[in-house]
Amino acid sequence: MKFMDYFTEAEVTRIHEASLDILQNTGLSVRNEKAREIFKKAGCSVDETTQLVKIPAKLVEDCRQSYVPEYTFTAQDPKYDIVLPDNRPVVITGSSAPNIIDPKTGEDRRATSSDIANIANLINELDGFDVFSISTLAQDAPKGQISVSRFYPALKNCKKPVRSNTPTIKDLEDVLELGALIAGGKEAYKERPFINHHYCPVVSPLTMDVDSTDAVIYLTEKGLPVYGTIVPNAGMTSPMTMTGTLVLGNAEFLALSTLIQLIRPGAPMIYAVLSTVADLRTGNYAPGAVETGMLQMAHSQMARFYGVPSGGYIGLTNSQINDAQCGYETGINTTGALLAGSDMFNMGGLLGSLMAFDYSKAVIDNEIALMLKRMKRGMEFSEENLCLDLIHEVGPGGTYLDLKHTQKNMRKMAFYPKVATREMRKKWEASRSTAEERAFEQVNKIFENSVQKTFPAEIDEKIRNNFPGLVKGDMVW
Amino acid sequence: MKFMDYFTEAEVTRIHEASLDILQNTGLSVRNEKAREIFKKAGCSVDETTQLVKIPAKLVEDCRQSYVPEYTFTAQDPKYDIVLPDNRPVVITGSSAPNIIDPKTGEDRRATSSDIANIANLINELDGFDVFSISTLAQDAPKGQISVSRFYPALKNCKKPVRSNTPTIKDLEDVLELGALIAGGKEAYKERPFINHHYCPVVSPLTMDVDSTDAVIYLTEKGLPVYGTIVPNAGMTSPMTMTGTLVLGNAEFLALSTLIQLIRPGAPMIYAVLSTVADLRTGNYAPGAVETGMLQMAHSQMARFYGVPSGGYIGLTNSQINDAQCGYETGINTTGALLAGSDMFNMGGLLGSLMAFDYSKAVIDNEIALMLKRMKRGMEFSEENLCLDLIHEVGPGGTYLDLKHTQKNMRKMAFYPKVATREMRKKWEASRSTAEERAFEQVNKIFENSVQKTFPAEIDEKIRNNFPGLVKGDMVW
Repeated sequence: MKFMDYFTEAEVTRIHEASLDILQNTGLSVRNEKAREIFKKAGCSVDETTQLVKIPAKLVEDCRQSYVPEYTFTAQDPKYDIVLPDNRPVVITGSSAPNIIDPKTGEDRRATSSDIANIANLINELDGFDVFSISTLAQDAPKGQISVSRFYPALKNCKKPVRSNTPTIKDLEDVLELGALIAGGKEAYKERPFINHHYCPVVSPLTMDVDSTDAVIYLTEKGLPVYGTIVPNAGMTSPMTMTGTLVLGNAEFLALSTLIQLIRPGAPMIYAVLSTVADLRTGNYAPGAVETGMLQMAHSQMARFYGVPSGGYIGLTNSQINDAQCGYETGINTTGALLAGSDMFNMGGLLGSLMAFDYSKAVIDNEIALMLKRMKRGMEFSEENLCLDLIHEVGPGGTYLDLKHTQKNMRKMAFYPKVATREMRKKWEASRSTAEERAFEQVNKIFENSVQKTFPAEIDEKIRNNFPGLVKGDMVW
Repeated sequence: MKFMDYFTEAEVTRIHEASLDILQNTGLSVRNEKAREIFKKAGCSVDETTQLVKIPAKLVEDCRQSYVPEYTFTAQDPKYDIVLPDNRPVVITGSSAPNIIDPKTGEDRRATSSDIANIANLINELDGFDVFSISTLAQDAPKGQISVSRFYPALKNCKKPVRSNTPTIKDLEDVLELGALIAGGKEAYKERPFINHHYCPVVSPLTMDVDSTDAVIYLTEKGLPVYGTIVPNAGMTSPMTMTGTLVLGNAEFLALSTLIQLIRPGAPMIYAVLSTVADLRTGNYAPGAVETGMLQMAHSQMARFYGVPSGGYIGLTNSQINDAQCGYETGINTTGALLAGSDMFNMGGLLGSLMAFDYSKAVIDNEIALMLKRMKRGMEFSEENLCLDLIHEVGPGGTYLDLKHTQKNMRKMAFYPKVATREMRKKWEASRSTAEERAFEQVNKIFENSVQKTFPAEIDEKIRNNFPGLVKGDMVW
């Protein structure tokens, strides 16, 4: 597949040069002291009073030389390892919603660690998802265990790569300790670091924060996987033009990439974004807007220019329920991003502007993910697939229905949906089911067949000794 | 925008050559006698017993020389004229459903001429739609007036281009007579032929029928606008591979195009398709399948190779209601087609595999159409839009919210949806509205402000004299 482009080559070059201009002449406010030191040592102009860092274009260009084209999400079970861009489109759950739509009441409420255990189980079973980014927070986390209370149920119940973030270095160290305990030691963990870290160290416009930047520096120094997402919001934290928002976000990506490559040249990265346009009628955030999709598409073209895998939070919806809006907002923006070359889609399971996880939405998004994967697989051109002999044999007015060739190819060629109905109306009227209801049936079916997963008893004991009072981390359905 | 490609240049050439091979060696069953004569006169091998016509590759290539890159949909009101590909994406209603979801009962029933009048009014007011393809049949049509009972309410109530088909030449002549009466004479009508004709003269595999082919020949000879849609269905009427179905459909497009160009070199055409993959679990038709979108995308690449505008029935859904399925099926396939270069989208207003029109679906599709148009408008790259001075001025950590630049650009830059909600959950809970409900509110609002349209009294009298007993053609809401 050759991707669509919004920009000409000359425009891409101009956007790159304009980004260098921003970093060199406007500069970046870097609140993190270590980051300022790293930039200073590399020859940036650093004002310790204003914390303003100006990055020479040459330094950004030098650091570009060590960008690498791959990024790996490691799983506890190696069969689930995922490599960008080879395994594109890589589909990931949306993450860190405070709430969940309760599957019994249909009302939203604060999410807990057992919700995370449930969701982890579900994502483990849904073929469309490649990575589990921990969908919610855990309100029941004991004091001092905010992060392990999320990672423990996630890692216990999902053997695909698990991804999330931590608010502090203390929490990050706890989570890495948890990883080492599961792996059977620090060295074993480092060989297969199956916790995949993600932060938003750049706050638009042009500010690098303290804590997330700390985490990125910490992990990069240790050679552990981490990447950052760039999140400008046009009209609030970036200019109210598409290219203005793009160039600002692009400059921010380059600033973060320069920092990472200065720490460890060749450290894998993802050009990840959640650029949006504020709805200035109300000030509301608009992740479902078509402009969000377009910005993702345009950033992906820049990522191709830099030779770095791309993607981000795309396909999220503003809708509060599984209605037509939630369907087309997810469908339009993910399809756009796929065809523009995005490799990674943090798209699954969230309603209402990333505020709440919903089980049916996760299953609907799984089906959309499988459709995107079918679209990516493409037309499968070959002399055999042209079927010239077959077309000649069947001839004008013949039928292909009863051919062995048709039977042989039907499963290979077509994606057979489980959520979408293709029943004629008269038949459908017996149930009058909605996509949401059929999706929820799938959830129930998956949980009926789910057995509670455990870590080996010895390991689990070590974990529980290490984190006294830790949540159970088991499914409750 | 540079479009995405599924095929390499070499593959496109191979598909073209394979299509020539099919037409020259397998041939086409041409049931229409006039068409056989035209092909014979041009040097094709024609077997009058079997009706098999074999078209030499050289003839197809010769006829390709007179393909033209534009196609115009003419409207009664010239301000609504639409030109492909300049006005892409051209969005059209889905057509000829037998049923309508009754707006009062929510149940499906046979559609009537007053439904057509209502729908015509709605489409006239919805900015996302460019052409009104008459959405339903009219069950109340008097004997002998099946077609005028559809075109009269459509033309009376919608001043955008109106498009549909007719089952017989008699009906076609009636419809053209209606056009001439409205225009004030045959000559005036010919100058602005605001009835846009569409047929499916090729029945896959490789068969040209009697009646639709008659209509295409009739209109092409008269220099009136007409185009055909190619509809292979993988596993039933074409091979169960994507490229096999594509090459068959492509050969059928070339056969029809050769006929049209033989009749009138330079006659405008559209490379229009509704290639699908049969759901062989049930035999059901699957217009909402992702493969339908992919085939449209691939055909569009072939259309670009031939230098002809492209499009077709894309974005239609299998869903029976306005649920998430209906949203993502329409969203995914139209976005794919847009980015692959399709110019025309027969997408709007139908549920349940083209079986029923639904008012809310039409308004939802209007919103999707406006999103597609925003996506097509693109990133609007310019030095001014890069906003380098503004980014410098606002600086790190500043805000763009209170800038004049933001106010000035907010309406230009972002599409502000009417169907999609962006309310936070607490606020939304006051109504708990769905996209379907908000869409229907828009329908009601449009009809509240609608005044019954009429033709000038003198013209209307002539029409009614010419078609005694003709339906009233007025809105009933």
